[in-house]
Amino acid sequence: MFYHVKELQYEAKPERPDPVYAKKLQEVLGGQYGEITVMMQYLFQGFNCRGEQKYRDMLLDIGTEEIAHVEMLATMIAQLLDNAPVQEQEEAAKDPVIEAVLGGMNPQHAIVNGLGAQPNDSAGYPFNARYTIASGNLLADFRANLNAESQGRLQVVRLYEMTTDRGVRDMLSWLIARDTMHQNQWMAAIEELEQNQKAIVPATFNQQFEKQEVSYSFMNFSQGEESSTGRWANGTSMDGQGQFEYVSQPKARGQNPKLAPAPPYIHGTPPNNANHNPSQ
Amino acid sequence: MFYHVKELQYEAKPERPDPVYAKKLQEVLGGQYGEITVMMQYLFQGFNCRGEQKYRDMLLDIGTEEIAHVEMLATMIAQLLDNAPVQEQEEAAKDPVIEAVLGGMNPQHAIVNGLGAQPNDSAGYPFNARYTIASGNLLADFRANLNAESQGRLQVVRLYEMTTDRGVRDMLSWLIARDTMHQNQWMAAIEELEQNQKAIVPATFNQQFEKQEVSYSFMNFSQGEESSTGRWANGTSMDGQGQFEYVSQPKARGQNPKLAPAPPYIHGTPPNNANHNPSQ
Amino acid sequence: MFYHVKELQYEAKPERPDPVYAKKLQEVLGGQYGEITVMMQYLFQGFNCRGEQKYRDMLLDIGTEEIAHVEMLATMIAQLLDNAPVQEQEEAAKDPVIEAVLGGMNPQHAIVNGLGAQPNDSAGYPFNARYTIASGNLLADFRANLNAESQGRLQVVRLYEMTTDRGVRDMLSWLIARDTMHQNQWMAAIEELEQNQKAIVPATFNQQFEKQEVSYSFMNFSQGEESSTGRWANGTSMDGQGQFEYVSQPKARGQNPKLAPAPPYIHGTPPNNANHNPSQ
Amino acid sequence: MFYHVKELQYEAKPERPDPVYAKKLQEVLGGQYGEITVMMQYLFQGFNCRGEQKYRDMLLDIGTEEIAHVEMLATMIAQLLDNAPVQEQEEAAKDPVIEAVLGGMNPQHAIVNGLGAQPNDSAGYPFNARYTIASGNLLADFRANLNAESQGRLQVVRLYEMTTDRGVRDMLSWLIARDTMHQNQWMAAIEELEQNQKAIVPATFNQQFEKQEVSYSFMNFSQGEESSTGRWANGTSMDGQGQFEYVSQPKARGQNPKLAPAPPYIHGTPPNNANHNPSQ
Amino acid sequence: MFYHVKELQYEAKPERPDPVYAKKLQEVLGGQYGEITVMMQYLFQGFNCRGEQKYRDMLLDIGTEEIAHVEMLATMIAQLLDNAPVQEQEEAAKDPVIEAVLGGMNPQHAIVNGLGAQPNDSAGYPFNARYTIASGNLLADFRANLNAESQGRLQVVRLYEMTTDRGVRDMLSWLIARDTMHQNQWMAAIEELEQNQKAIVPATFNQQFEKQEVSYSFMNFSQGEESSTGRWANGTSMDGQGQFEYVSQPKARGQNPKLAPAPPYIHGTPPNNANHNPSQ
Amino acid sequence: MFYHVKELQYEAKPERPDPVYAKKLQEVLGGQYGEITVMMQYLFQGFNCRGEQKYRDMLLDIGTEEIAHVEMLATMIAQLLDNAPVQEQEEAAKDPVIEAVLGGMNPQHAIVNGLGAQPNDSAGYPFNARYTIASGNLLADFRANLNAESQGRLQVVRLYEMTTDRGVRDMLSWLIARDTMHQNQWMAAIEELEQNQKAIVPATFNQQFEKQEVSYSFMNFSQGEESSTGRWANGTSMDGQGQFEYVSQPKARGQNPKLAPAPPYIHGTPPNNANHNPSQ
Repeated sequence: MFYHVKELQYEAKPERPDPVYAKKLQEVLGGQYGEITVMMQYLFQGFNCRGEQKYRDMLLDIGTEEIAHVEMLATMIAQLLDNAPVQEQEEAAKDPVIEAVLGGMNPQHAIVNGLGAQPNDSAGYPFNARYTIASGNLLADFRANLNAESQGRLQVVRLYEMTTDRGVRDMLSWLIARDTMHQNQWMAAIEELEQNQKAIVPATFNQQFEKQEVSYSFMNFSQGEESSTGRWANGTSMDGQGQFEYVSQPKARGQNPKLAPAPPYIHGTPPNNANHNPSQ
Repeated sequence: MFYHVKELQYEAKPERPDPVYAKKLQEVLGGQYGEITVMMQYLFQGFNCRGEQKYRDMLLDIGTEEIAHVEMLATMIAQLLDNAPVQEQEEAAKDPVIEAVLGGMNPQHAIVNGLGAQPNDSAGYPFNARYTIASGNLLADFRANLNAESQGRLQVVRLYEMTTDRGVRDMLSWLIARDTMHQNQWMAAIEELEQNQKAIVPATFNQQFEKQEVSYSFMNFSQGEESSTGRWANGTSMDGQGQFEYVSQPKARGQNPKLAPAPPYIHGTPPNNANHNPSQ
Repeated sequence: MFYHVKELQYEAKPERPDPVYAKKLQEVLGGQYGEITVMMQYLFQGFNCRGEQKYRDMLLDIGTEEIAHVEMLATMIAQLLDNAPVQEQEEAAKDPVIEAVLGGMNPQHAIVNGLGAQPNDSAGYPFNARYTIASGNLLADFRANLNAESQGRLQVVRLYEMTTDRGVRDMLSWLIARDTMHQNQWMAAIEELEQNQKAIVPATFNQQFEKQEVSYSFMNFSQGEESSTGRWANGTSMDGQGQFEYVSQPKARGQNPKLAPAPPYIHGTPPNNANHNPSQ
Repeated sequence: MFYHVKELQYEAKPERPDPVYAKKLQEVLGGQYGEITVMMQYLFQGFNCRGEQKYRDMLLDIGTEEIAHVEMLATMIAQLLDNAPVQEQEEAAKDPVIEAVLGGMNPQHAIVNGLGAQPNDSAGYPFNARYTIASGNLLADFRANLNAESQGRLQVVRLYEMTTDRGVRDMLSWLIARDTMHQNQWMAAIEELEQNQKAIVPATFNQQFEKQEVSYSFMNFSQGEESSTGRWANGTSMDGQGQFEYVSQPKARGQNPKLAPAPPYIHGTPPNNANHNPSQ
Repeated sequence: MFYHVKELQYEAKPERPDPVYAKKLQEVLGGQYGEITVMMQYLFQGFNCRGEQKYRDMLLDIGTEEIAHVEMLATMIAQLLDNAPVQEQEEAAKDPVIEAVLGGMNPQHAIVNGLGAQPNDSAGYPFNARYTIASGNLLADFRANLNAESQGRLQVVRLYEMTTDRGVRDMLSWLIARDTMHQNQWMAAIEELEQNQKAIVPATFNQQFEKQEVSYSFMNFSQGEESSTGRWANGTSMDGQGQFEYVSQPKARGQNPKLAPAPPYIHGTPPNNANHNPSQ
Repeated sequence: MFYHVKELQYEAKPERPDPVYAKKLQEVLGGQYGEITVMMQYLFQGFNCRGEQKYRDMLLDIGTEEIAHVEMLATMIAQLLDNAPVQEQEEAAKDPVIEAVLGGMNPQHAIVNGLGAQPNDSAGYPFNARYTIASGNLLADFRANLNAESQGRLQVVRLYEMTTDRGVRDMLSWLIARDTMHQNQWMAAIEELEQNQKAIVPATFNQQFEKQEVSYSFMNFSQGEESSTGRWANGTSMDGQGQFEYVSQPKARGQNPKLAPAPPYIHGTPPNNANHNPSQ
């Protein structure tokens, strides 16, 4: 169960409205790697957790923090939209600074949301739950989480570069620092799990049931062998179970597929012109 | 540019048709972490690559291999659908084995695809490009890739458990082995990049611009302190730049937000009953 | 069955083209609460209606009218796009008025639709059927309809504020008046149903099967008690069946969940390192 | 900012696993009118609220409660999935009870989520943010909320009918009671707002700018006049501003549209065969 | 503007309920090539039509007919759902015929729609407007329409094969006949347009601006030359402007791409470890 | 299986960056009729092909070529984004040419993709697999393909009109020429199939099972008879099996639907006020 306090986790006070920037900032609120995504991902991983309690507790700690980040970003966006002008008059258009702002605004911020934040990304595309994963395998999911925090911090940093508003940058500098922690956190949790099990997900599948002759082979399907110089093509494999091998000219080992014709009731391309009477 | 050879990378020959399993197998073809996802993700990361040629080449090697995996899975699914019965007659229903097959089949496999594979997941939801990422930052993207191969191998292993068809298992054992390699590959590439730059993405953002006092703090937002015992709350941070700290009772530092009223032309909840005449 | 007459329900004649406004006007054509949504919603409620014929007839009356509103908006948008310039030349860009227009146009209006309307919203996101509801319970659905007409009229009013074109405003003033009627219509139908059954949907569920001790309790989960002063926390409940109660400090009554470990064939996070051989 | 306690708001303890029912229960977790929808809708309405503090506080009270409902449903679904069998063997198929369970299970619950809840509906379609609305006009939004709670309680009641598990029914009886309160709550808040402003949203648009001659006319577009007997066609309008009128044979008042030909650079259907050289 | 009459275009009376078949029949109502798709596609092509009036009139004739097909299918589906049982009791499960029906039903038909039709396909995926096209070029769009009617008739025929209910088959035989006409109709309209303009869309682009040396070359990118025996590789091209040519070994003519590094404010993969201070 | 060579099929070298045009060009990469769509459509039609090998081979030839077109467009877009400025400073805004560029750029190109291409359309909407079809009936699918190449060439021609960059136009002139070939190719393949089977898809459905009295009737549902003058209303039908007939006043032949009330456990609108106790 959850409780709410009115104060934000950190200040969200822009120096001045900026509706065009509000549109851009939506990316890290409702985008593929925005705060709604990580909020939902961590909460569902926590709710579904069948592992040790310390992981469940940790997931719900960070999931609950992310709801607060959603709140901060929504609050910031609403203020960036304060008094956004809705009508593009010719007079306004003569001032290119004003007009630039008007032209680039997300029209839904006015028409649909009445100058409020929306749970969408910077293209106006809605958050959807297929952005998130809770697989029941914590090592797999913590890798998803490390990726989400990496993409997320990258996007917030790019947004930091896109404004000079000191209030906005102040809030973003909080989010960037928390993403530093969260990348560290998932790296720590991954290291812990990799030490307790094998590094390849899922660790429990007995590798004798996989085609082990290609478990450590790098295959060169793109002409040119620059890829042969990477770590992935040389030395002991990262899981310590094999030696990387570079296959310069990978060959096809499978059949040339010939599919059987479809039965008549499917009405595929007919082998001849005969009509098919439906079965009765 | 690309060339195609008719033979599959590996055999795709089921022992017998199984339309219910065909539906399930769609998950790793067109699902969130299916082969279409990694095919598109690696190809776009390669096409967009502004880094060293060895990364570009490597991305296009593996992206090209993934097109072959799409081909293998589609071929397998088409054969699992051979002669799928389309009509649920009462006679059929009296044989529960047959009926179980009928009842669980994806009806679109017959109605829409005429007993062919579709680029959808096991719930019939179509692949979409928001499953993929090409951020222009290779460390971020390789973490996305490691996650995709971890979720993907987990799903293929679960599908391996769901059948006893030796032909299907044979093909899956190939895909599982390749996913072993691909997890290893991304782990190797990540290690290489982390050694050349800092481990936190993006490495180039000068950390003095982030709120460093919370860059290494684990915050306890879920009652109960089981989370204090993890590696993420103790010792040197994974990036080597700080010490993990456990904040038992995190406090709100921000304002209690009071948003300004909307201007009249927005027609939000009115402060009073006065009509607003539109501007003219 | 349906018939069409060539004349529009009301005039749709803009004074002059305005491709930027055309983009915005898409919201009330193909958006979440646009005319396509209410057209589909009312028609499906009518087609599915298992209640009295007067409701079925009324739903098909208004559903049929909404097809005409789709037609009017599409016709208006096509004219607003007349001769929209497609090329942003440097010369044009030197005239900020022209350029503002160009920069804000939806490029799909030219590339995809050849200067025609599209069934999308103002962000270019397509109409989809999950915007609509036909639940088989008319009181529930009429509340959906009242909401749709409320959001819809609000959006049309905002769009009225965004233009000074007298032709556009003339047509919008028609749609606003019809939305006045349609809000009134659903309020009337709701009142009629609430008088014939209980006000809580579904009226037929015997309330003794619900946890009646919390059926009229307002729970204070957000710190601060401003919410205690509303009508919802004081007096007789709106359905006349209880007294509103304000619960200042709501307590958790449920268990602290501990989920059982997953079976081995699921390959969740392993309790130990043992391999799992797939069943055969 | 938010805090979490480990205990659920109410017990979520099924008597026994039931993977088929788990699939169905997803509807009220991640569906169009599920708990995720109301959670997001109320939180965003609260975060964006520019009106009186008592509304903001109330929205955040209920939004925070809804996160707890998401938690309860996810916990219940995970338990309903305990030990779900993944393999459809012929032996199992001979027991129709077991097989019925297997055949109707959502395969993603095993393949993707490892026997955990997912933020999707009962068809496996993901929650998306276009289900929600925060318009900045509280009367409009409270009507959206009353609808959501009406559809939601209806769906939970139907799910109550679909099981005999006493543990599931016990939890659902809690949710049904809370939905009783929440319908009452929105009805109370709506009454309060309608008394302070006019009942037609938005109340601030001066009605002299709408085509008032059709503001209270019911138009008969579907042959047959059963609809003339409803409250919506007779007597004083619900907003008290007019008299309902029944228009038996509504006429078209607009033009027969003739759109201008597209300019040559659009390459629409050509008026003649002349080639168009692109401008240079 | 539109009018509705109560009678259906043709009888929609099933012999008996069949909820599993109701689920399947959704494909041709709300699917990619269902009746909603063609209804929307023809109406928007008509509303947007800038060509001759006979095309506009014809598009609105057929678009209006398709609304009636939506109505017939919705009516049929509602009746197929009559009295669908919602509870899977163990007793029921012992009768495999009944249980088969229960297990394969779309649960949303009961939970969401209360035994009514929904505007979704047979996988429960909602209709969306990206299924449709109105390009402003009639020859292009009539080809879209011929395809839609071809896919649509194919799907209806497959559904005809899937039932023995004489009432359902009777209605489908009507839809199949109308699709016969509609395929003929688009073939006729296409022939007319191709005779008046060139067969390649758009006919107005002066072909001297395209790379004419590859305008009639079939390129063999898949090993094996079976494709050389088709009409597309031999003889005069279909537009009469060239000779088909078979290129057995197509060569790459473009550059090996080397993209420039991203500027520092993008924070791509860094060329070195230097921090980037954001611009101020 | 597939192989990649580094060189592009044709040069993709813009004269200069143009981030606004990059946004527009996305349409033919990731849009409804973009190169990803045809790539996926042809590959799946080929993988699923149960017909003659020459069709399978031909489909894989062209599907493989389309991957190369995806590569060319992605490469072009990345270069058009070179050094795109991300910050809208007041200074920049004073230069309307620069500002026009900034205002119209897709913000995700910087925030999400780091100046790389994305698999989305020009509105930022992601490619999804419901754009594609592989029905198992080659004549149906080749009509889909002819449509896709018609819409695609139309869109590329419009994009050609929207730029004066000679490098971009050079590459587009390649794609336009290939689309000329591909339209010719599908027309040739369609002609071949139509000569071997009947022209109406599916050719195998015995027409005596359709309602033949309306198989060749054009029905006039839109007031006005301009549509009577088209080829579709006069003469022998295109399939040679009938005579077109113009039905000036089409009549409804079906029932006026009266649906049965829903059973009590569905909780539709109640016929009376009686409570329903859930079954136990």
